[in-house]
Amino acid sequence: MIKLPEGLVTRAARNEDQGAGYINKGVAAGEIVVPCNSGRCLDKPCAIGRGLSTKVNANIGLSQYNSDIDSELRKLDAAVESGADAVMDLSTGFDIQKLRAKILSNAPVPLGTVPVYELACGKEQRFSTIREEDFLEIIEKQASEGVDFFTVHAGITYDLANYASRNPRLINIVSRGGALLASWMLKNKKENPFYSNFDRVIEICAEYNVTLSLGDSLRPGAIADATDFLQVQELLLLGKLQERALSGGVQVMIEGPGHVPLDQIEANVKLQKKVCHGAPFYVLGPLVTDAAPGYDHIVSAIGGAVAAWHGADFLCYVTPAEHLRLPDIDDVRNGVIASKIAAHAADIVKKLPSAENRDRLISEARARRDWKTQFALSLDPRLPEQMRSRSAPREEDVCTMCSDYCSIKITEEAVRDHKDGRDIA
Amino acid sequence: MIKLPEGLVTRAARNEDQGAGYINKGVAAGEIVVPCNSGRCLDKPCAIGRGLSTKVNANIGLSQYNSDIDSELRKLDAAVESGADAVMDLSTGFDIQKLRAKILSNAPVPLGTVPVYELACGKEQRFSTIREEDFLEIIEKQASEGVDFFTVHAGITYDLANYASRNPRLINIVSRGGALLASWMLKNKKENPFYSNFDRVIEICAEYNVTLSLGDSLRPGAIADATDFLQVQELLLLGKLQERALSGGVQVMIEGPGHVPLDQIEANVKLQKKVCHGAPFYVLGPLVTDAAPGYDHIVSAIGGAVAAWHGADFLCYVTPAEHLRLPDIDDVRNGVIASKIAAHAADIVKKLPSAENRDRLISEARARRDWKTQFALSLDPRLPEQMRSRSAPREEDVCTMCSDYCSIKITEEAVRDHKDGRDIA
Repeated sequence: MIKLPEGLVTRAARNEDQGAGYINKGVAAGEIVVPCNSGRCLDKPCAIGRGLSTKVNANIGLSQYNSDIDSELRKLDAAVESGADAVMDLSTGFDIQKLRAKILSNAPVPLGTVPVYELACGKEQRFSTIREEDFLEIIEKQASEGVDFFTVHAGITYDLANYASRNPRLINIVSRGGALLASWMLKNKKENPFYSNFDRVIEICAEYNVTLSLGDSLRPGAIADATDFLQVQELLLLGKLQERALSGGVQVMIEGPGHVPLDQIEANVKLQKKVCHGAPFYVLGPLVTDAAPGYDHIVSAIGGAVAAWHGADFLCYVTPAEHLRLPDIDDVRNGVIASKIAAHAADIVKKLPSAENRDRLISEARARRDWKTQFALSLDPRLPEQMRSRSAPREEDVCTMCSDYCSIKITEEAVRDHKDGRDIA
Repeated sequence: MIKLPEGLVTRAARNEDQGAGYINKGVAAGEIVVPCNSGRCLDKPCAIGRGLSTKVNANIGLSQYNSDIDSELRKLDAAVESGADAVMDLSTGFDIQKLRAKILSNAPVPLGTVPVYELACGKEQRFSTIREEDFLEIIEKQASEGVDFFTVHAGITYDLANYASRNPRLINIVSRGGALLASWMLKNKKENPFYSNFDRVIEICAEYNVTLSLGDSLRPGAIADATDFLQVQELLLLGKLQERALSGGVQVMIEGPGHVPLDQIEANVKLQKKVCHGAPFYVLGPLVTDAAPGYDHIVSAIGGAVAAWHGADFLCYVTPAEHLRLPDIDDVRNGVIASKIAAHAADIVKKLPSAENRDRLISEARARRDWKTQFALSLDPRLPEQMRSRSAPREEDVCTMCSDYCSIKITEEAVRDHKDGRDIA
């Protein structure tokens, strides 16, 4: 049974409505994870799972078009400042190891990676020529460096990759790690090394207390592909792997879709919760339409709010740059805030007292036209203050939209002067 | 029974999956409206209601801080260009009549107004001194000028206003029109003139074929106030007024909330549809949290998508400026696009063939890395093209996020080279 250091759990409980005892029980049951490598000490650890506030992850990283480590560190700071509870370094180019070392020494929040990316770009050779043992060595290397959680695509078996090759969907495989593994398997006619060596994966993660995030290689990349045979077949297998990892003393999350229409989100969450034994659900989006590139942070806020409402625990942010380009620092900020809005809207209907109370306090301030308190309690305190200051009214207690016709002021004045003691019924 | 001009209905059916016959039946049953004053000929009329694509309204207008008619006309163009199906002129300052005349001669889409606003700012005197007959005269005047739909706050009775004065909510009355009427009633100890003269309101609207949008004066302005006694009591009355107006030959919509938590939206829509006899539901938001000023277009996209999925027909946009200031032209664009995303995400799950097909075509283009088609089919074609051009890769068929690690390309290549005829089960 998993038992985490007391100080870690206490720190993770700081901003929760639940205490450390609740988190410990959830971790033991596999329903909560607190990602933190045994070699790290996090200033801002977080607990993810049942009964807790919905968390948000931001992705950063170098690419073949971006070698600027400092710019990624600025994105890291922007993400954490905007409220990201975790970051993933998804670098696929240049000095991956150097950036990771910098993030590990700078980030106050848990760091996740997709180890196959380093494998893919560390080699001059083609990905298909990588040896089976390299897959295990790279996760052991990154675990020993201090990475807090890994996406491991152990659920895409040779049979599933072969099936996908013969029964293509609208967009076949949209997970980069999943596509790399499928390509390796199909070219080598061999089983997925993470699947065939899953016991060794468990040992490594257990040794360093790395949380395993079981990747959904076959997540839908188009609305029309959602909840199809491939996606659900992989999910069923992830549920089996989750059981094995949990028994081996490893914390586990399950990754989820992807592009999903509004009316299939609840079913996706409930299915995951059932077949993965209540493990935390880490969703990308979901994106509720394919048709709004440039605005996919909004598309994902819609899907993320609905997913989290029905039980998803961890939202991977999607930025306005999704489907288009590497995100810049504004994309990072906008992506985090959009996900935080989704998470908070869900936390209200998850009946978390702190979430309900935040909206109550901000609305009380709004009724008083107390702008300072209103902005201080906002998910992003800076933008509303800037917006108001750029369009400031002469009177402090209204705004330039309604000014003298402020409904709150009109009603307040009418009620103050009115006396009529009759009641309805 | 309402019978609309054939040409109008044919034009309104142009972009629908349903034909003119379907729309005529829906209009007769009170489940669809086609707002168009009998004195106007609209280039882009729209039909709103059951079985049709979800429509979007954008608000513009002068205020005490904005006398610039040209800037409002530019906002009108921006709104229509971004896809607004209707606009409302909510002016509360300066030369309201002049702006309205300009919009009526320029706008290709239906124009709505809230006639009490003109009454409120047309007079030097206090609003409470306005005569009962003025309320009817202003709607007759605006109807004769060609306004296509009116928000009329006929559902807030003296008893309800009195109840609200004695049982305040977190934020009491957040509808400007509702607050003005409540104030008039409480100060004069008289019934709502639109309620006591509702037969005359019906006559005027019938004469000019003005669509009546029954305003929800008591909509919740805070999550904690949602679905409360006042809101539901007013809605029940609006259902009664809807029946009377429909019998009098008037097209009717019902306006709805407001600030509503995610898990009460479906109930709100179903309640409205039942007690208002299937009349089109025109919602403002709903906003699923109070805590994100500056981002209320995203907050409302979440609520609007869920509302439209469950049957709301017409989304009133909310801009990033909501709760803060008068919107500028970028706020207008962002507000319209966010609402269009919500509407389209809902249309997919309303199973509208044209909506499902749009996502299919865009995803097919995405799978081919055919950027041109992808952008042309996007809800906003301009932004994604700009974003990609500012971060252009060397190879045309990838983007700077993944470049050589494009999952679609990797999978395509692996599948092309692979042969294994075995199948699962």
